[in-house]
Amino acid sequence: MDPTVGELSEGRILRRILERLGESNALVGPGDDAAVIAAADGRVVATVDTLVHGPDFRLAWSSAFDLGYKAAAVNLADVAAMGATPTALLVALAMPDATRLSFVTGIADGLRAACRELAPGCRVEGGDLTVSDTLTIAVTALGALAGRAPVLRSGAEPGDLVAVAGDLGRAARGLGILFERFTDAEGHPVPVDESLLDHAELADLAAQLRPSPPVWLGPEAADAGATAMMDVSDGLVLDASRMAAASDVTIALESAVLGPDIASALAGGEDHALLATFPADRPLPHGFVRVGVVLARGQDAVLVDGRPHDRRGGWDPYRDWDSGTG
Amino acid sequence: MDPTVGELSEGRILRRILERLGESNALVGPGDDAAVIAAADGRVVATVDTLVHGPDFRLAWSSAFDLGYKAAAVNLADVAAMGATPTALLVALAMPDATRLSFVTGIADGLRAACRELAPGCRVEGGDLTVSDTLTIAVTALGALAGRAPVLRSGAEPGDLVAVAGDLGRAARGLGILFERFTDAEGHPVPVDESLLDHAELADLAAQLRPSPPVWLGPEAADAGATAMMDVSDGLVLDASRMAAASDVTIALESAVLGPDIASALAGGEDHALLATFPADRPLPHGFVRVGVVLARGQDAVLVDGRPHDRRGGWDPYRDWDSGTG
Repeated sequence: MDPTVGELSEGRILRRILERLGESNALVGPGDDAAVIAAADGRVVATVDTLVHGPDFRLAWSSAFDLGYKAAAVNLADVAAMGATPTALLVALAMPDATRLSFVTGIADGLRAACRELAPGCRVEGGDLTVSDTLTIAVTALGALAGRAPVLRSGAEPGDLVAVAGDLGRAARGLGILFERFTDAEGHPVPVDESLLDHAELADLAAQLRPSPPVWLGPEAADAGATAMMDVSDGLVLDASRMAAASDVTIALESAVLGPDIASALAGGEDHALLATFPADRPLPHGFVRVGVVLARGQDAVLVDGRPHDRRGGWDPYRDWDSGTG
Repeated sequence: MDPTVGELSEGRILRRILERLGESNALVGPGDDAAVIAAADGRVVATVDTLVHGPDFRLAWSSAFDLGYKAAAVNLADVAAMGATPTALLVALAMPDATRLSFVTGIADGLRAACRELAPGCRVEGGDLTVSDTLTIAVTALGALAGRAPVLRSGAEPGDLVAVAGDLGRAARGLGILFERFTDAEGHPVPVDESLLDHAELADLAAQLRPSPPVWLGPEAADAGATAMMDVSDGLVLDASRMAAASDVTIALESAVLGPDIASALAGGEDHALLATFPADRPLPHGFVRVGVVLARGQDAVLVDGRPHDRRGGWDPYRDWDSGTG
């Protein structure tokens, strides 16, 4: 028996979701008009990001668990990028009537697993269920700075080192594997046969479907004196250019440290690595790798090995989605 | 010139939205990986609610301004129902490529107007834009308790008075006007001709399209000793039965005070009035009207004029949506 959500009441679906989410950590958890979350230092970090069926995922490729995991992970990374520790998620889930209950509980399992692995102490503490023709998962993440100043995009100073924690290019390679090897003759997605993939390809695929950004390194970077930080969601060059613009500096990247697949590392999106700048006079925190230096603002926002880099990276949903779903 | 969002970059759309939202009130406002919002007493109230094209609104009936206004208002009411004052909204907006820029800025104008009129000091401080086949607006609202205990659904005690602040039944009558008078022969929505409506009907329509719950009375109710509170989103009887279940009491409603249209007042959803219980030994706070008393738990969660009331009210998207859009 695996009923569709259209066959169940909102209350019953909600109860089945709550069973999967575990104990609340909040002052007031799910079940009232709103949750109440501790914000011990008198501030709360808050961000929202949405996964939409079609532009953001294909159901032939992503399991329900994957979707819950990714929806949580991308938001946890945004909290980390401020130098904060995630404290709670709120999840707005809009689903077609024909969605199976097992799919919904799979999303809940993925949300919980991402919290457990990437941000222990953080839980889903509230949310909203509605019906929609388009499966949509909007996750709000809250976080605590524990007395730290938030680390903004705008604080990079000439002379700082530029460093990254987490993968670069893997998620984009994973997406390439999906489009190149798991589509039919018309280009429609077909299920992934993992037995066709080697170890490195499986890791790339996992980075795309279930990204695991180093959330715990966000607060560590802040404590180590990071002057600017952001998560790399749209590719290193594009996101570095945003940081450079916000800080009015030029970021000079060094490709030698980016591994063998430099193109993916520079332009590939969705890795959710942490990009940060640090004063040059002290060691980088463990987990961060130097990828460049900050220069006084020149003609270009970003240089790669001393030259402008004009290939636009990343993913712009308004330019790049081809209207496919699957 | 009114381009579609598909013709613009995410960055340009975002700039046009931010222009309409006014100055940030946050410690860190829009533009970084996350916002940072003050939470002076060490706690933050947080809730999310979503409007989806089809089940929640029809574009023939709701303007972009209406949608922004309603998406904000329903969430502001949830914050108020905890006894808190709204401090910030985060808005996840998923839109078809063909959406006009003027529609997006209309949503922004509606969000801003709702904050200005219902919760001064609250602003949109963050959000997310993505493309989707289904127009979807998920709003997260944050709020501050200013040292108050949150008012839960579970605190009603036998002997308390039951009271409501705000309209009951108006939004349901407004929806009735739309379905009865502004649909074509096939039942598809057609634009509203306001010249066909009298003053009372226009007010009912406004309550449906742009609800204005008494958000400022939430903290006042808490200060006046409210023992339980919630917002009436699914109809008085259904929501009172939820409060009764959470508090393990029976709520006895008195229909004489509900005005001439008792059926709509008991069963109509989407008014977002505040339902609260108060100790009987002190005056009700200004703006609240007595609608009943709390009894020790009996056989029925809710009584109306001493009798069980079995007509299910409210709106369950999983049971009630007919898949229409328009």
